[in-house]
Amino acid sequence: MSRPLVVDVHTHVYPPSYMAMLRARKTVPYIHDPASGEPRLIILSSDDDPSIPIDERGRPVDTSYSDINVKLTFMQQHGIDCSVISLANPWLDFLEPAEAQQWAERINNDLEETCAKNNKSTDPDSALPLQGRSTLFAFATLPLSAPSVDIIVNEIKRLKTLPHIRGVIMGTSGLGNGLDDEQLGPVWAALEETQFLLFLHPHYGLPDEAFGGAEVTKRYGHVLPLALGFPLETTIAVTRMLLSRVFDKFPRLQILLAHSGGTLPFLAGRIESCIMHERKFVENGGDVPGPQRSIWEILKTNIFLDAVVYGTAGLKAAVAAGGGTDRLMFGTDHPFFPPLNEGEKEWISVTTNYKAIDATFEGEQDAVAAVLGGNAARILKLE
Amino acid sequence: MSRPLVVDVHTHVYPPSYMAMLRARKTVPYIHDPASGEPRLIILSSDDDPSIPIDERGRPVDTSYSDINVKLTFMQQHGIDCSVISLANPWLDFLEPAEAQQWAERINNDLEETCAKNNKSTDPDSALPLQGRSTLFAFATLPLSAPSVDIIVNEIKRLKTLPHIRGVIMGTSGLGNGLDDEQLGPVWAALEETQFLLFLHPHYGLPDEAFGGAEVTKRYGHVLPLALGFPLETTIAVTRMLLSRVFDKFPRLQILLAHSGGTLPFLAGRIESCIMHERKFVENGGDVPGPQRSIWEILKTNIFLDAVVYGTAGLKAAVAAGGGTDRLMFGTDHPFFPPLNEGEKEWISVTTNYKAIDATFEGEQDAVAAVLGGNAARILKLE
Repeated sequence: MSRPLVVDVHTHVYPPSYMAMLRARKTVPYIHDPASGEPRLIILSSDDDPSIPIDERGRPVDTSYSDINVKLTFMQQHGIDCSVISLANPWLDFLEPAEAQQWAERINNDLEETCAKNNKSTDPDSALPLQGRSTLFAFATLPLSAPSVDIIVNEIKRLKTLPHIRGVIMGTSGLGNGLDDEQLGPVWAALEETQFLLFLHPHYGLPDEAFGGAEVTKRYGHVLPLALGFPLETTIAVTRMLLSRVFDKFPRLQILLAHSGGTLPFLAGRIESCIMHERKFVENGGDVPGPQRSIWEILKTNIFLDAVVYGTAGLKAAVAAGGGTDRLMFGTDHPFFPPLNEGEKEWISVTTNYKAIDATFEGEQDAVAAVLGGNAARILKLE
Repeated sequence: MSRPLVVDVHTHVYPPSYMAMLRARKTVPYIHDPASGEPRLIILSSDDDPSIPIDERGRPVDTSYSDINVKLTFMQQHGIDCSVISLANPWLDFLEPAEAQQWAERINNDLEETCAKNNKSTDPDSALPLQGRSTLFAFATLPLSAPSVDIIVNEIKRLKTLPHIRGVIMGTSGLGNGLDDEQLGPVWAALEETQFLLFLHPHYGLPDEAFGGAEVTKRYGHVLPLALGFPLETTIAVTRMLLSRVFDKFPRLQILLAHSGGTLPFLAGRIESCIMHERKFVENGGDVPGPQRSIWEILKTNIFLDAVVYGTAGLKAAVAAGGGTDRLMFGTDHPFFPPLNEGEKEWISVTTNYKAIDATFEGEQDAVAAVLGGNAARILKLE
């Protein structure tokens, strides 16, 4: 059997325009250029620690974030035919209201142009199949801090005119009050109407107190916030959407959850059980309406998962929760989790996910092909 | 095939002595007896809300917590042959140092006596097989706030003289600073030496801020703290043990994780990947030693999971992470999650877990029998 198509749905960029914006800032998030060495990205308020010399604060941000050629080389080295690139966190969450619309348009136009230019160079007539050439599509970003929700809705509609945009990426803060905020209604309606996929991605993690305080959190480097805080942030966000009945009110909303749903597939049963046992909800004689549709139904109709979970245990839960293999899509999280030894070309974070897919669907070539790229090509209409 | 043995490893009690202690208290946790109706249990500081009339604060605590006959009836109604009872949270975490030893001894003696008396009544000679009669064993509680760790170690050793004690239940705070506290070394050593199973169970959840603040948390009743906070608390606690190298230093420690590990089976791959990519750890040229054994190895040698996860997605992840079906054990979480309609004798929280086990191991009778009771009988030496 021929090698299946491989599509990476979880791969981030900071376009040069975004890098320039971060360089001009002096508060988190910002980029600082030390006297020597790579620029530093100070992305979280905890990174901006005055006890650390400014030249060592945050993390190095090399060209893999902003130079699309570095990503194309990475794709070739890892057998990836097509990447659906998205702005990395924290997106535009932090912008002043007056700046939001302009920056969203600029960055989305940059993403569109990057995809168009690249795809034209590999196939001027767009007639070749995706397989075997390096093709790019993109998830756009939204001006969530804009002074009016109409500006966000208008940007979603404008994105329909950009041929390489296949959805939008969003964090968990929404307009600043989480994704159960009723003010987001018009945004959900616009996403339903355009049938853009919403790629929901963490950034804020959990408060240090959850891990036992700042001292404990720091003791283990980034492990607790990244390994546990990020997945829980996603799970909390989507559970708040469920509990506030977003999926009842907008039943055609299509969401791709980062990191195989955070922990949603594993906890879905417990969430459903807790809802059924919650006296507060009307069906049980409570005082507010609870969600009308079961979490299992929502997992099978509204939610897609990436396969960025680094093991068969997570993938098996993802498949069982989603009712099959047709809602799961390969991803890498590039340029995050590079090999620690700089000489290594093969990224173990990527090969771990490849191996987990093979091991989970042992001998089921159709399932492997679906997860690696077939699902993404169909769901995102990549052509 | 005959009906398999069913053992419930996750079932809680408040012995009458513990109830009396809570009734004598005026600060959290405490029990308040309203002028009419059932006593109220005020267990969390958030329950002790002065804006709520005292007679309505907290949750009703009926006889299912303290009357062992209610549990025996529940067991008969749900086909459970044997229960390994444990003190419910918050155990003795809150006691003044001087009180801790005395209360631990008293409660553990009460648990022992309850089991002994019951088992003698169903089989005076202890000669019958477990199946078909209602047998009790227990996980004991530890005086964790005692002024010296020796008192805790001595209680563990004393427990070996109580024939129905099969392990100890513990929360995530340890001596007050979490389970990565080096001061806990002698406790881990004593548990290794006695080969008592440590049943690790959540109580504290996550700070409200993790869910978007107290107002958001309350909006959905107990769903966010119970469905997401509890499992994450367990996951964080065991990950801190792993990162602080507890399993390297005490490789024979045997831990049973509540709620199928919280989210550990699902997140194990991500935790392992984050450790491998953490510059702080020595193997990678960092400045502190990282864990020496892989999380997958620890899941297969040190960790047991209950099957209280309410769905096939969670169970499949639990089996995949633990390398098979021989480390997973049925549980109910009784007396929590009773039916909301009081007339119902069948608890949907229990039947959901029964059905999930059947659906996960469809047709594999040996696996079903192992998870329902065979594993517990072997691991806990129930006879």
